[in-house]
Amino acid sequence: MNLIIFEFQSGSAERDDAAKMSTAMTTNTTAMNTTTNATATTTTTKPEVLASATWNSMEKVSSELFALTHGAFVRQILRDHEDDVEAVNAKLDQLGRNIGTRIIEEYLARTNASSSSGAACASFEAAMEMTAKVGLKMFLNATARTRDWSEERDECVIEMDNNPLADFVELPARYRELAYCNMLCGAIRGALETVRMRTSCSFESDPLRGMGDKFAIRVKLVELVPEEYPYDE
Amino acid sequence: MNLIIFEFQSGSAERDDAAKMSTAMTTNTTAMNTTTNATATTTTTKPEVLASATWNSMEKVSSELFALTHGAFVRQILRDHEDDVEAVNAKLDQLGRNIGTRIIEEYLARTNASSSSGAACASFEAAMEMTAKVGLKMFLNATARTRDWSEERDECVIEMDNNPLADFVELPARYRELAYCNMLCGAIRGALETVRMRTSCSFESDPLRGMGDKFAIRVKLVELVPEEYPYDE
Repeated sequence: MNLIIFEFQSGSAERDDAAKMSTAMTTNTTAMNTTTNATATTTTTKPEVLASATWNSMEKVSSELFALTHGAFVRQILRDHEDDVEAVNAKLDQLGRNIGTRIIEEYLARTNASSSSGAACASFEAAMEMTAKVGLKMFLNATARTRDWSEERDECVIEMDNNPLADFVELPARYRELAYCNMLCGAIRGALETVRMRTSCSFESDPLRGMGDKFAIRVKLVELVPEEYPYDE
Repeated sequence: MNLIIFEFQSGSAERDDAAKMSTAMTTNTTAMNTTTNATATTTTTKPEVLASATWNSMEKVSSELFALTHGAFVRQILRDHEDDVEAVNAKLDQLGRNIGTRIIEEYLARTNASSSSGAACASFEAAMEMTAKVGLKMFLNATARTRDWSEERDECVIEMDNNPLADFVELPARYRELAYCNMLCGAIRGALETVRMRTSCSFESDPLRGMGDKFAIRVKLVELVPEEYPYDE
C-alpha cells in the first residue's frame, strides 16, 4: 500500500479523479502481492475461498479498538458541527470515499485482480459480488452477500450479517437520523469510483436507526466511466 | 463490553470520574470472560503468554482499514479546526482518553484481572508492564516494553517496536508539530485513570515528527486516587 501522504485534496477531489483512476488501473495491472499470490492465480478460486485466504494474510488489530476509535471520532465531528446530523452524515460519506480510494489498491494487490482470478471488476455485477464477499470480509471480517438485483443488473443491495463498526453502539433519540456507519457507504463508493464505476450508495436498512434487523447498503450504478488513454506529449 | 451509549459527557467528564471508577472497579471484580478464562486463571501466567492468548481470542479487523480510518478522521478534525495543530493534539488526546476509559473494561474482563493472574494493576509498575506487554498487544497487535524507569518507580517510557496507527503515514512540513498518534497517549491515560492512577502521557519519541526511530511514550504517575467506598443512604 502506498504511503498516506498526509495532504488534503480539498476542493480538487473531483478533478483528481481521472488521475487517480489511471493510477489505480496501473496498480491493477502491475501489483502482485507475494503473500497471497498462490491463492489467487487459479481461475477457479471461489469468492469465499479468496476471502478467507486474503483475510488470513491481513495484518490485524482488535475490532473493539476499531469500533471505539470510530465512535470517538464520530462524536468529535458531531461536536465540531454542533450536532448538525445531516452535515455529519455527508462528512462521514466523504471520509469513507477517501478511505475507499486508498483501500481499493490493497484489495487489487492482495486479490491479484489483474489475473483471471475472478477478483477483477469486469462488470458491475462482478464488482458487487467481490465487494460483498471479498472486500467486506478482508477488511472488516464481515459476512455479506448481494440480493435484490434489478432486472438491468445495475442495482442491488449488499446485506451484512455482522458489522463491527456498530458493535456496542446505541444511538440516543436526538441522533436518530445519524448515518453512523456512513463511512462504509463512502468507502464502497470510493473504491468503485477508482475502478471507473460511479455509484450511489446508501443504507437501505440500518438497525441503529431502527431500520431493519441487518445493515444493508443499496448500491446503484450511475455511470461506467470510459477508460482514458494518456496521449503522448 | 458495555454498550457505547452514544452520549456526550462534555464538560462533566472530570466530574464523572469517581462514578466511572467505581463502575470500573465493579467490572474488575465481577467480569469473567469465558473465552479467555482458562488462560488467565493460573497464577504463573507470563505477560507474553497472556498477551498472545488474549490477542488470539480477540475479534479483529484489518489494520490497514484501522490506519486509514484513523487518518481520514484526523484530517477531518484538522480541517474542522483550521489546521490548529495544538488544538487538534489536545482533541486527539481527549478522544483517546474516552477510548481508554472504555477499553480498560475489555482488558480487565479478558485478562481476568481480578484474579491473581498478574494482570491486576496492583502497582504503577505492574500496570505499566501490563500496558506495554499485554494491553498494546491485545488491542493493537503491537510489541512494546518499558524502559528508563525512574528511581522512585513512578515514571517510565513505553517503547513500541511497531505502531499500526502510523503505518503508511508521512506528515507534510506544515503538520510537523502534529501528535498524529496522540490517541494512544490519551487511551493509556484514560485506562490508567479508570484504575485510579492519574498520569501524564506524551510521546518522548515520534518518528512521524522526526523524533527518534521508534514510538515511545513517557508515562509519569501523578497521583494514586484513593478508592472511594460508597456510603449507604
